[in-house]
Amino acid sequence: MNKPVNIKELEVGFDIPAAIGMDESEIQTPCLILDLDALERNIKKMGDYAKAHGMRHRVHGKMHKSVDVAKLQEQLGGAVGVCCQKVSEAEVFARGGIKDVLVSNQVRDPAKIDRLAQLPKFGARTIVCVDDIDNVADLSKAAVDHGTELEVFVEIDCGAGRCGVTTTQAVVDIAKAVNAAPNLKFTGIQAYQGAMQHLDTYEARKEKLDTAIAMVKDAVDGLKTEGIDCELVSGGGTGSYYFESNSGVYNELQCGSYAFMDADYGRILDENGKRIDQGEWENALFILTSVMSHAKTDKAICDAGLKAQSVDSGLPFIFGRDDVEYLKCSDEHGVIGDPDGVLKVNDKLRLVPGHCDPTCNVHDWYVGLRDGKVEALWPVSARGKAY
Amino acid sequence: MNKPVNIKELEVGFDIPAAIGMDESEIQTPCLILDLDALERNIKKMGDYAKAHGMRHRVHGKMHKSVDVAKLQEQLGGAVGVCCQKVSEAEVFARGGIKDVLVSNQVRDPAKIDRLAQLPKFGARTIVCVDDIDNVADLSKAAVDHGTELEVFVEIDCGAGRCGVTTTQAVVDIAKAVNAAPNLKFTGIQAYQGAMQHLDTYEARKEKLDTAIAMVKDAVDGLKTEGIDCELVSGGGTGSYYFESNSGVYNELQCGSYAFMDADYGRILDENGKRIDQGEWENALFILTSVMSHAKTDKAICDAGLKAQSVDSGLPFIFGRDDVEYLKCSDEHGVIGDPDGVLKVNDKLRLVPGHCDPTCNVHDWYVGLRDGKVEALWPVSARGKAY
Repeated sequence: MNKPVNIKELEVGFDIPAAIGMDESEIQTPCLILDLDALERNIKKMGDYAKAHGMRHRVHGKMHKSVDVAKLQEQLGGAVGVCCQKVSEAEVFARGGIKDVLVSNQVRDPAKIDRLAQLPKFGARTIVCVDDIDNVADLSKAAVDHGTELEVFVEIDCGAGRCGVTTTQAVVDIAKAVNAAPNLKFTGIQAYQGAMQHLDTYEARKEKLDTAIAMVKDAVDGLKTEGIDCELVSGGGTGSYYFESNSGVYNELQCGSYAFMDADYGRILDENGKRIDQGEWENALFILTSVMSHAKTDKAICDAGLKAQSVDSGLPFIFGRDDVEYLKCSDEHGVIGDPDGVLKVNDKLRLVPGHCDPTCNVHDWYVGLRDGKVEALWPVSARGKAY
Repeated sequence: MNKPVNIKELEVGFDIPAAIGMDESEIQTPCLILDLDALERNIKKMGDYAKAHGMRHRVHGKMHKSVDVAKLQEQLGGAVGVCCQKVSEAEVFARGGIKDVLVSNQVRDPAKIDRLAQLPKFGARTIVCVDDIDNVADLSKAAVDHGTELEVFVEIDCGAGRCGVTTTQAVVDIAKAVNAAPNLKFTGIQAYQGAMQHLDTYEARKEKLDTAIAMVKDAVDGLKTEGIDCELVSGGGTGSYYFESNSGVYNELQCGSYAFMDADYGRILDENGKRIDQGEWENALFILTSVMSHAKTDKAICDAGLKAQSVDSGLPFIFGRDDVEYLKCSDEHGVIGDPDGVLKVNDKLRLVPGHCDPTCNVHDWYVGLRDGKVEALWPVSARGKAY
């Protein structure tokens, strides 16, 4: 499927939250809005950083799940392609025209492996992670069956505590098996330290990354000793990209959240002890919500609850306001503390979600705004693509 | 839009997780599955209870967001219609053929009011909640504009702490205003005690409901004194329906979660101190997930993380297993404790989600299973309909 949608056929307020040219005040809530100026500045800034440090930037598409945002990251930020976490997501990006796609995850189900091996037919360089030598033969067979080539990153668990091998020997063994298997090529190392990205202080994050970098360096050296070419060493996120970029070991970044920002990332501190959403990055993503009840004088009820966001990393905050506070939520209601009774029914507020990735995944559209007008309507192209 | 989908055109593993007739082992994960036998037993049991107690059962469609499930609840459970929380959800149910639809929430945005007033044209009795007398004129004008009739419940906040008035005088005043407004009719009272549904003990829930029932009774008496007909008194959930049914005040239930069950509801206790998922209701909804990595001997990594569920009410539990445990999750990974190393890559597990409503809202399909085979594929028809 993934057929192009004719936006003009969609009903505003049922299929889609807005129409091009609409004033911000007319947008149907709750929905995701993007401040296009802020988004473009974030994308350009990270792109400039990567270029200045000689790093490839493979942007993390699992964050926004949007072909349009990925293409903006290519155009304005020099992104080399995307990574994502699922085969169905990779299919959306490859079919959408992204030419270098990494599934930064293990693919084990036979039907998924079969689909993965067809991705190069869309013109996309296709890379997948492996952490188990038993996976190699299955990937190879599928690539042979479809007459394609799959590239492989061996995944190292350098602290995320999820998938990945933990010894240099395992990296070398899998790399050799990959290079010996028909239609497979060992291309590099996947080493994303996920668990440290949200540690508050720069020093705490650096300590974790130093350990990770040492582990990855050992693997790179081990491959070199065996004469195995390791083209790419890939990893790094919004809370760590400067460590990988200055490591002398990594040559590819995988940042995602920097483009949109969220409340949980925003509160971590940079080298100077300043919140990263107060200088390093701008909030570009918001949940637009409306007040729908104010029956109690000190509480306003808004229309964005659990169906409009994920609260796994905490509640949203209300952007640009310190007179009102998002206190709690249920499925479709948000309770806003309004001690001075400043809000009125139908007032709109911008919420910065606790965690952008799973919040984007409950919405179908991004509404791009500039100067108070709707300039872009981008589908969350890979929404729900979890297979 | 809301055009019928031709399932045969959909790609399994990209658009949809399964095909009719498929074996459970072939289903693409992560996805929602329904044990159809358990679902039907739950639906029939609640329907029988409501009938035996002379209660109308207006099932809560915001839980499943599925026209197919709502119709099953009509057929097997004698449901009189649905309630839901948003106008766009109500549109899905009305367009889908449900003939009695309540938006159990406030509708204030002018565009939403305009859409709501058109719902009776689909053949649906349309009821909406009001907690502010200022809302009455807007609803009336829209109904007049479209030549339709809207019915109104006055919402009482009997403990949920969200929308709703808190005095009998306010109920009477709004009811009078509604009956005086062209094309509006006052039909009853919305009084759902949301906050108590998840209190662990039967006694704690009863205490909260006794207070709520007294408040609602006072409002009903106040309306009677003024000679205002109050046809329906509506409320009650899976954790309280027996209290409303035996109150002598309510005549309509609004239960949702009983049909699917989830981990958070399941742990509350019935009158005899027994978990309600161990006798009163059966788990009928599961997230089917696969093991995709087992690089560490004591941990398996599965493919259902935050993009496959909402963890607002806690983590899922693994159904029917006490040898393995879902320990934590990130966006697309679930970490499963497997101390004895019993799991293998590609093993499938059934997760009971922490909270069914927002979990269903991230998925596009229900896969209905009977005797290990896929019997039904139902779209989550109102998924993402949050406007």
